[in-house]
Amino acid sequence: MKLCTYTADGRTRTGIVVDGTVIDTGVDGTMIDLIRQWHDLKPDLEARAAAGMGIPLAAVRLLAPVPRPGKIFAIGLNYADHIAETGMPKPERQLWFTKAQTSVNGPYDPILIARGTTANDYEAELVAVIGPGGKHIAAADAPAAVFGYCVGNDMTERLWQQASPQWALGKSFDSHAPMGPWIVTADELGDPHTLGIHCFVNGELRQESNTRHLVFPIWEQVAHLSQAMTLEPGDVLFTGTPAGVGMATGRYLQPGDVVRVEIERLGHIEGTLQAEA
Amino acid sequence: MKLCTYTADGRTRTGIVVDGTVIDTGVDGTMIDLIRQWHDLKPDLEARAAAGMGIPLAAVRLLAPVPRPGKIFAIGLNYADHIAETGMPKPERQLWFTKAQTSVNGPYDPILIARGTTANDYEAELVAVIGPGGKHIAAADAPAAVFGYCVGNDMTERLWQQASPQWALGKSFDSHAPMGPWIVTADELGDPHTLGIHCFVNGELRQESNTRHLVFPIWEQVAHLSQAMTLEPGDVLFTGTPAGVGMATGRYLQPGDVVRVEIERLGHIEGTLQAEA
Repeated sequence: MKLCTYTADGRTRTGIVVDGTVIDTGVDGTMIDLIRQWHDLKPDLEARAAAGMGIPLAAVRLLAPVPRPGKIFAIGLNYADHIAETGMPKPERQLWFTKAQTSVNGPYDPILIARGTTANDYEAELVAVIGPGGKHIAAADAPAAVFGYCVGNDMTERLWQQASPQWALGKSFDSHAPMGPWIVTADELGDPHTLGIHCFVNGELRQESNTRHLVFPIWEQVAHLSQAMTLEPGDVLFTGTPAGVGMATGRYLQPGDVVRVEIERLGHIEGTLQAEA
Repeated sequence: MKLCTYTADGRTRTGIVVDGTVIDTGVDGTMIDLIRQWHDLKPDLEARAAAGMGIPLAAVRLLAPVPRPGKIFAIGLNYADHIAETGMPKPERQLWFTKAQTSVNGPYDPILIARGTTANDYEAELVAVIGPGGKHIAAADAPAAVFGYCVGNDMTERLWQQASPQWALGKSFDSHAPMGPWIVTADELGDPHTLGIHCFVNGELRQESNTRHLVFPIWEQVAHLSQAMTLEPGDVLFTGTPAGVGMATGRYLQPGDVVRVEIERLGHIEGTLQAEA
């Protein structure tokens, strides 16, 4: 199933995406509420999807599937070719940082270049959305802990990132976590480690890889994080970016640039850079 | 005014603390909802505080004043004596990291030593709770952006912190952000940079300083963070810890140890270390 968060007629709802249309889930609450009740809701949502009668996707505004995740964790240096281009050593241990809740952005919304910043960069990433989650999840049990997957762009302001030994601020600018366009549930997607991933800037291919090249696969990511903390429904993991980021060539994003991230079987997100007012 | 979040008779509410009692605010929602409506609510809350009729503090369970902050940002190396004991250079720029939302803990709740961890450490800190917040807040305007203050303990698992160049995981263990016992509003507290701060382990004084020794005062913290991101009501800033952490002497916390953090005019929090089941 494909599940989105959308606004239509001034109301924000969760929806099922079927053949270019959105069908209201009827769920009273957010995507996090839906994820919490997924097992109970699933039969009804399947019936609604089968019944059709949606409104065209073009008639709604899609928000990030989880507009306010409790946690956004992102892993650095997790594709071999990206590690090579940064000149950093391959981490022996998973390297995690965070993005602020306020950095979440809709899949087609403008991406802001904050006042005074000059080094805004893209990072195409597969995003895993936690389902039941839990603590001390073994890698073998991790597939059941994930609800689904979507496309993400781990936007980064490189000067702020490099100005501090901690990346949290450079990764947390407003609008710097575009996600979407919807969640493809884990049961529909199957293996998330076989997906082509591409990033284009103004139509020019900048990143091209496959999630099979993740250094630490998602199951190991879930296992590692959950040793420290409880993963909860709707928490979001950015799973790493392949080679080709702007930092490697010094080509940063400018107002008017269009960044498009595509992942096989998940769809695409696309945002236009815009100078902050 | 002193504002808390508490549970009594199975219900979680916000309350006003007056002379050892808690008076229900009558606000429908969380502390974040209260902070959002503060200017409208304040006259009614003052009238409730004056009317009295609270229940004894001893009859309720206090939770963290903001049980689920949208963001928890914490500044590292922000007292000169603590910088000296870590052997690290004094940061020229503010050094920020994050703690996960799931690390929040009540002021008197047990603090968990997660399975397999051996280097759990305390850090006594003044915590600022954002009020109106905003973006691009000048340091001169920052006092109006803060709602109030409470006591915090920036619990840290040092081996996880040191095992990664990014501190986010070592700072984000479940229960590792005890806060409370209540928020003293900014209008009642006045200058937050004049407060004695102490930490005791099993009654032994381990940290002793005054918030006048902050390297980067809170107003500069708010100004710096808000260049990157919108600060929102209920966001929480841990403002740094003075010298005396366990790391400096290798004395880490063990099950049964009692950590007490006191800040002048704000009160104290106290938690007992407990091995995770």
